[in-house]
Amino acid sequence: MAPKPAERAETQVDKPLLSVLRGTRRDPPPMWMMRQAGRYLPEYRALRQDKGSFLDLVYDADAAAEVTLQPLKRFPKLDAAILFSDILIVPFAIGQNLTFVTGEGPRLTPPLIGADLDDLTPYLARLEPVYETVRKVKAGLEPDKALIGFAGSPWTVATYMVAGQGSRDQSEARRLAYADPAKFGELIARIESVTLDYLSGQVEAGAEALQLFDSWAGSLSPAQFEQWVIAPTARLVAELRSRHPEVPVIGFPKGAGGKLSAYARETGVNAIGLDETVDPAWAAEELPEDLPVQGNFDPLALIAGGEELTSAVKHILDAFAGRPHIFNLGHGILPDTPIAHVEQLIALVKGAK
Amino acid sequence: MAPKPAERAETQVDKPLLSVLRGTRRDPPPMWMMRQAGRYLPEYRALRQDKGSFLDLVYDADAAAEVTLQPLKRFPKLDAAILFSDILIVPFAIGQNLTFVTGEGPRLTPPLIGADLDDLTPYLARLEPVYETVRKVKAGLEPDKALIGFAGSPWTVATYMVAGQGSRDQSEARRLAYADPAKFGELIARIESVTLDYLSGQVEAGAEALQLFDSWAGSLSPAQFEQWVIAPTARLVAELRSRHPEVPVIGFPKGAGGKLSAYARETGVNAIGLDETVDPAWAAEELPEDLPVQGNFDPLALIAGGEELTSAVKHILDAFAGRPHIFNLGHGILPDTPIAHVEQLIALVKGAK
Repeated sequence: MAPKPAERAETQVDKPLLSVLRGTRRDPPPMWMMRQAGRYLPEYRALRQDKGSFLDLVYDADAAAEVTLQPLKRFPKLDAAILFSDILIVPFAIGQNLTFVTGEGPRLTPPLIGADLDDLTPYLARLEPVYETVRKVKAGLEPDKALIGFAGSPWTVATYMVAGQGSRDQSEARRLAYADPAKFGELIARIESVTLDYLSGQVEAGAEALQLFDSWAGSLSPAQFEQWVIAPTARLVAELRSRHPEVPVIGFPKGAGGKLSAYARETGVNAIGLDETVDPAWAAEELPEDLPVQGNFDPLALIAGGEELTSAVKHILDAFAGRPHIFNLGHGILPDTPIAHVEQLIALVKGAK
Repeated sequence: MAPKPAERAETQVDKPLLSVLRGTRRDPPPMWMMRQAGRYLPEYRALRQDKGSFLDLVYDADAAAEVTLQPLKRFPKLDAAILFSDILIVPFAIGQNLTFVTGEGPRLTPPLIGADLDDLTPYLARLEPVYETVRKVKAGLEPDKALIGFAGSPWTVATYMVAGQGSRDQSEARRLAYADPAKFGELIARIESVTLDYLSGQVEAGAEALQLFDSWAGSLSPAQFEQWVIAPTARLVAELRSRHPEVPVIGFPKGAGGKLSAYARETGVNAIGLDETVDPAWAAEELPEDLPVQGNFDPLALIAGGEELTSAVKHILDAFAGRPHIFNLGHGILPDTPIAHVEQLIALVKGAK
């Protein structure tokens, strides 16, 4: 099938992020920052004041698109926008109620430690407003910038759905997975299915790459990691690839440590995100040759600035000079990050060569 | 220098744990469980009721010795006792006040985010009662069982001293380490020095092996890991070795993931403890050949029991069959662990061959 005109036009523009995700090395590397749209930006805090709850903001497509684009306006050398949304939109669509309690984080009710999946009434229309945001962002994006859509991985989303909130060590979900693997497996399958539709919807609305956030991949035993991280991710990536072969998927199994290599080999992701605890030199040796990597600057070193910043950036750039690399943080940027340090970081990565 | 009579007598008794720590493979492997003395045991809960605060119990040498020995009385196939105490005895001796708040965990005041080391008045006598516990345990221990002393690693102890309590992501200590490495370095040096005396005191009182708990080793960037985990641990291990060449040191850098191998090579520990997230097959390949390893059964799989328990135990035993191995959990045993599952685990490890 010949590409549609819009697709053909798109492929003619050089988007550094997408070319790296397809396996090309770039020098300097493309760059974006996890949570780059958010509380460290004064323009975000100004907009946020008028918008009610966090969920109201996510569901206001005009505002969410503006927030998504804010970091690219301030830092024109960034190479990608990432959709401003939340991984808990998927449980909300599966039928849990979602609220964000200031200072305490999200709450999903009823938590599945005390309820069954069958008690939930799906509201898949809760995904739709996000697609409108994606369309608006795409319309406002410079042609050399890429638009990244995202979702949580099934395991990480399940940890919140089971506990009803963030939880230390993800103990509730890990316990349920041991105690009732059938029930837990149904939950993972349901999340997988809704996430597949959700990410497909983002692609159809204009997302050009996808990231799967597996924030709690680090808490599982090896057998559970195989069963609840690698297997569902592999199925999701295979389905996405069959629907959208041109759209690369970045897997970000935070905290996976020594299991990163198995994740990289077995899930089929196009690229792997590394958290800030991973030694880039170790990763460069351990991971499959030519696999694009993303990361992994410590957000706390960004707050500190100075010599630590310079040397850690250099260490990362040097370690990954031999393979496709997207410069990023190893974790979301923190609210008290000085803007001047972000500018310094971007100049270091982009201006050095 | 010829060994003193007591030492000579000791070396004639075969202690499986010590022989593995010296590099011998044993089949079946020696076994103990982190937090094996504690809340999952009814006899512990019974004794605990009468003893006031947790700190009162730690400082009551008779009671602490009894608690230390309880698991060996109930499970005679365990190969070691580990001193019943707490890693925060060291900050208490450095001069912070220590309280245990039920349901909330320990509190150290003043936290060092708001105070200087110089504000603290050391009370090194606060270490002494622990040595009395060690002597009492040693006197009550069967001759084939080993007595393990322990302390927290400098980094992990520092995370509590800086924040004044447990903290998500150890962010306060990591921030201080970036913002004021001189102040943080002084803190680490102080902890190192007191820990060296503390562990030496335990050895002189009868401890035959030592474990360094580095519960929060997993949160650091690679450069900080080198500076605040590997370097202080290497110095401490070297000092201990020069004072007590016959006493092996087990390092337990929980969450170190891909940095385990660097830790094993660079710290000089005699053995390395692995947490439950580490794939034993990966570790067996990655770690220096013949290095004794300890671990790494998932405490949640022990609660679950059944088929998961059997297959995970077999996976661990098989993966480490080629090197010296001490069977252990990957983390402390949990209060709601069924005693019957512990019995099943011990039978599997000890009875299989």
